[in-house]
Amino acid sequence: MKLIEERIKKDGKVLPGNVLKVDSFLNHAVDVELINACAEEWYKLFKNEGVTKVMTIETSGITMATLTALKFNVPLIIAKKTRTKISESYLSTGVVSYTHGRSYQVNVCKDYIEKGDKILLIDDFLANGSALKALIALAEEAGAEVVGAGIAIEKTYQGGAQIIAKLGYRIESLAKISSLSDDGSIEFC
Amino acid sequence: MKLIEERIKKDGKVLPGNVLKVDSFLNHAVDVELINACAEEWYKLFKNEGVTKVMTIETSGITMATLTALKFNVPLIIAKKTRTKISESYLSTGVVSYTHGRSYQVNVCKDYIEKGDKILLIDDFLANGSALKALIALAEEAGAEVVGAGIAIEKTYQGGAQIIAKLGYRIESLAKISSLSDDGSIEFC
Repeated sequence: MKLIEERIKKDGKVLPGNVLKVDSFLNHAVDVELINACAEEWYKLFKNEGVTKVMTIETSGITMATLTALKFNVPLIIAKKTRTKISESYLSTGVVSYTHGRSYQVNVCKDYIEKGDKILLIDDFLANGSALKALIALAEEAGAEVVGAGIAIEKTYQGGAQIIAKLGYRIESLAKISSLSDDGSIEFC
Repeated sequence: MKLIEERIKKDGKVLPGNVLKVDSFLNHAVDVELINACAEEWYKLFKNEGVTKVMTIETSGITMATLTALKFNVPLIIAKKTRTKISESYLSTGVVSYTHGRSYQVNVCKDYIEKGDKILLIDDFLANGSALKALIALAEEAGAEVVGAGIAIEKTYQGGAQIIAKLGYRIESLAKISSLSDDGSIEFC
């Protein structure tokens, strides 16, 4: 999608360690009009898939998943990195965060995904695919079908999308980045 | 607001320790239509205040803050509980979480709040007011003005709203709960 590519070119910053910083419009200060345009795009792409729930992982995908769920008029399920002291029956799996350099558990209460659900996954970044694989595992463990994933920014050179596409899942990334250079340049596919 | 009170009566659960569980529609599985109605209500209440930014604290206020920022057509600022390895110039302050029973730092990058900003704070719960006080401190340290706070559920018996209102801030809570009983009953103001 042109709108997000142009914004990345204008305001994205390349930091050491292959990190693309989009804090100024995507995940710390958030341009909600831009995010709403992304949600509209995912709606167009997946509107014939019979989506019954949108699902994301906290934290930085929540803004876009909220707006996407509103377009589809379906509930949003937020997979949690923590469990509260409120006891629950959870499905759990592990994720390694690329940006934060640590691993964590993601948890979804069993009550909120059902057999027969058709789940659209939404997240801000797709790099090695660890977070997306975790969401797929949670949804399928609950007996739901994953109809695909809407991603704002895919780093194609980290291979996650290819791995997940080979497993048969549809991935719709709105900006695909083929390389980040130490001189600050960003190449799109 | 009737809509949210009725939903709390229908689907809220009272757990030991004065905890109101609203996971099934507000913060784990999310009824985005309900949240959008809350956002519309806050828009009506604060539309003449010249709001330039909406601000919340991760995680459970993000859905409602996103939809509220969209109504106002202004950026959303998400105060963070973690700092990434991406170095930044942050404003920070401390919060004690009632539900999770632990304390944490909240952080906002200095670049994203400016002198002259008029900030509307949005959060899901107001109990002892610790999170709201932290957001006020961060906004004011950056030189911005806090025009008020939109809260989905206030627990009036925990006193946070009174303390903050006495400091001169306008608080608009859509559901006000005066007591939770161990037998599961919920009293509204």
